[in-house]
Amino acid sequence: MTSDLETPTVRAVRERVAALHSELVRYGLVVWTGGNVSERVPGEDLFVIKPSGVDYDDLTPENMILCTLDGEVVPGSHGSDRSPSSDTAAHAYVYREMPEVGGVVHTHSTYATAWAARAEPIPCVITAMADEFGGDIPVGPFAIIGDDSIGRGIVATLSGHRSRAVLMQNHGVFTIGRDARDAVKAAVMAEDVARTVHIAKQGGPLVPIPAEAIDRLFDRYQNVYGQSPEGSA
Amino acid sequence: MTSDLETPTVRAVRERVAALHSELVRYGLVVWTGGNVSERVPGEDLFVIKPSGVDYDDLTPENMILCTLDGEVVPGSHGSDRSPSSDTAAHAYVYREMPEVGGVVHTHSTYATAWAARAEPIPCVITAMADEFGGDIPVGPFAIIGDDSIGRGIVATLSGHRSRAVLMQNHGVFTIGRDARDAVKAAVMAEDVARTVHIAKQGGPLVPIPAEAIDRLFDRYQNVYGQSPEGSA
Amino acid sequence: MTSDLETPTVRAVRERVAALHSELVRYGLVVWTGGNVSERVPGEDLFVIKPSGVDYDDLTPENMILCTLDGEVVPGSHGSDRSPSSDTAAHAYVYREMPEVGGVVHTHSTYATAWAARAEPIPCVITAMADEFGGDIPVGPFAIIGDDSIGRGIVATLSGHRSRAVLMQNHGVFTIGRDARDAVKAAVMAEDVARTVHIAKQGGPLVPIPAEAIDRLFDRYQNVYGQSPEGSA
Amino acid sequence: MTSDLETPTVRAVRERVAALHSELVRYGLVVWTGGNVSERVPGEDLFVIKPSGVDYDDLTPENMILCTLDGEVVPGSHGSDRSPSSDTAAHAYVYREMPEVGGVVHTHSTYATAWAARAEPIPCVITAMADEFGGDIPVGPFAIIGDDSIGRGIVATLSGHRSRAVLMQNHGVFTIGRDARDAVKAAVMAEDVARTVHIAKQGGPLVPIPAEAIDRLFDRYQNVYGQSPEGSA
Repeated sequence: MTSDLETPTVRAVRERVAALHSELVRYGLVVWTGGNVSERVPGEDLFVIKPSGVDYDDLTPENMILCTLDGEVVPGSHGSDRSPSSDTAAHAYVYREMPEVGGVVHTHSTYATAWAARAEPIPCVITAMADEFGGDIPVGPFAIIGDDSIGRGIVATLSGHRSRAVLMQNHGVFTIGRDARDAVKAAVMAEDVARTVHIAKQGGPLVPIPAEAIDRLFDRYQNVYGQSPEGSA
Repeated sequence: MTSDLETPTVRAVRERVAALHSELVRYGLVVWTGGNVSERVPGEDLFVIKPSGVDYDDLTPENMILCTLDGEVVPGSHGSDRSPSSDTAAHAYVYREMPEVGGVVHTHSTYATAWAARAEPIPCVITAMADEFGGDIPVGPFAIIGDDSIGRGIVATLSGHRSRAVLMQNHGVFTIGRDARDAVKAAVMAEDVARTVHIAKQGGPLVPIPAEAIDRLFDRYQNVYGQSPEGSA
Repeated sequence: MTSDLETPTVRAVRERVAALHSELVRYGLVVWTGGNVSERVPGEDLFVIKPSGVDYDDLTPENMILCTLDGEVVPGSHGSDRSPSSDTAAHAYVYREMPEVGGVVHTHSTYATAWAARAEPIPCVITAMADEFGGDIPVGPFAIIGDDSIGRGIVATLSGHRSRAVLMQNHGVFTIGRDARDAVKAAVMAEDVARTVHIAKQGGPLVPIPAEAIDRLFDRYQNVYGQSPEGSA
Repeated sequence: MTSDLETPTVRAVRERVAALHSELVRYGLVVWTGGNVSERVPGEDLFVIKPSGVDYDDLTPENMILCTLDGEVVPGSHGSDRSPSSDTAAHAYVYREMPEVGGVVHTHSTYATAWAARAEPIPCVITAMADEFGGDIPVGPFAIIGDDSIGRGIVATLSGHRSRAVLMQNHGVFTIGRDARDAVKAAVMAEDVARTVHIAKQGGPLVPIPAEAIDRLFDRYQNVYGQSPEGSA
């Protein structure tokens, strides 16, 4: 049965998802076994996500877990003897409700989570933030694990919002993207701006960026720069 | 005589304890030769601990030190020509008084020690802290090296408490676990939440988590998630 | 056509520019594909700069991009099928207007950008800053991408100023040097002093350094120390 | 002539000094070519120090520089074609005036320098600081390079003081030890406590340690622990 499930497309998603977890480690966004990356399988009602409680050093394409959009492990697939990430239901909810989303990332990265512990949005005072998020990074509701409430909070906050990142109150950050790599980039940038703006604010009053300039920066960055649709530098 | 002491069980504990010290380095919890990990030898009144004043690069299973629950080096065992960690008496006290504890870790990790220098418990304002510690991380008494006072302070503070971490006033953090790996995880998570909550608090008022939600998170995390009893992500 | 453009001099600049990007990573000045280094080709109206949106791990001499001083990619040169850094126009403006400048670096390094988000110059309160920058690190205007306004802001702020670093308001830091390595050193030192002075200021009032001592330190460091014109330690 | 100078003892000092510089990098105490380590040649009026302005990656026993206690390079010795560290005069002054000192280290490590920029001693509020420094880390005078004033400030501040570290106002930290390794350890521990106490103080009032307890901790640590006179953990 496994052979039917493990198409070249699924295999490629497993490889990307396994490899992208190392970016969370590289940028210091996670400790121990915390954090997770998932990616939708193109053209299928499936996604691939990290197993629960496995060391980052031990993640491989084979132990990534293939799930349906209801968050159920696909029986007989590689790794299906393990439990998927405890955040699987939240990822699944996002894939069901936001068809344009191809990747989801969740971390408890330090500075983003610090803003979340105050339920305070991150104000857009640096141009890189205007480029990447098009304005403030918003706060989603307090919601605990066990039903769809985390997923609902993510979708309610990000639908129609420019930001690909949401600070879930008292919890951490979720990011979305057109694929897993894009969502990982958003997670990296969200922590970077959370840190920079926190430090800036500790030193005194912040200088705002005019809304019109934020609009121009966001528009240009999303549409003009980079070798690909992905973006810049 | 060594051959009698060095059973396969003792050997396995030596290997785990030596290897787990590298996690303290990986997560930046220690500098120079500071910090120490120990583990109880299952089924014996013995534990294995780091030698005193040896570089992290030079730790091996062979130079870990086998001690009795009185904190005495077992004569003739590997490494018995060296002194054990200067915190050995505190570890021994915990193993004597808390039979459910299989591993103990001590560090002076930066943020946990900063809370300890103010004798201030870390408030539970992030869900990862509710998961892992079930509430605040408490402060133990000021106690200096030289008798059982550190061990007594740890045991008095943690007995009957959900937290596996205690901030010893003006000193650093001790964590306990069902084995050494579990205690190391607690040390990593204690520093992670100490850092996140410190940074959150610098930015303004923290949003508390309702006690009922903390209870539900702790219960679920301890009993439901992960591939094993150990936990999540 | 490529063979005519790719002289040994151009090749050497490509190698230096590609390699120097790893210093930005080593010192934690950049995340993802952010930041860029360029160097003027000695004796030519050309410079070499990083491509846009390429991973740091994938930078090679061959994919660096050769540009004219108008910021146009030289047709037929190696890498000319890619877009240069989105900051190319700013680098080009500096090379056109400041003939003594041989290297330019741009980053959004955390602490320098934090000062920039408050439009606050970094005061010269440590001797290493007097050595390297000869006084405060100044703030340049708010200017967004799309025309020469960033380049003009850099040149207007740094012309006749001792500092080789400018904090562009709400944006990040640009540094200049006699070559790319010198500009990278300035970027590393700018972040180092931005961090140290931020932390110092959080703890209470700073002790100023007398202007006369700043002058003596700057003069000595620029003229006496090191194995080469480059400097000290 | 070189062969007469390069005794096995000198060779051993060169190797130790070159290797110990990597500890400054490992613990993040230095950037670029900043910072320096020296060690007295036992039984000779000589010491070995880092060359000026050389990359940390390029330090070798051969390019370390042999100096007299007047701070002059020994003609004909290995590396004597290079300039020694710009702080050589300060190291030499310490070796001349403090015969018990066998090693000296200087860095601009972030947190220690931040306290120095406020001319504020680091209060002894953590037991590791009592162990290592026996009380507060003191501040030395503002003194700039060019004569013996830095050396005089170090010696005046540390003579008869328990601390092996001094914060030179607006400058950085110097540490001394019985050999270079001991001075490097003091530099690592000085930054560690500077960071921890800074962070602690940002969060609210610090709890002092009674003077009597500081005395007992210092006495015990200096005389009892470790495998050697060096110390603990």
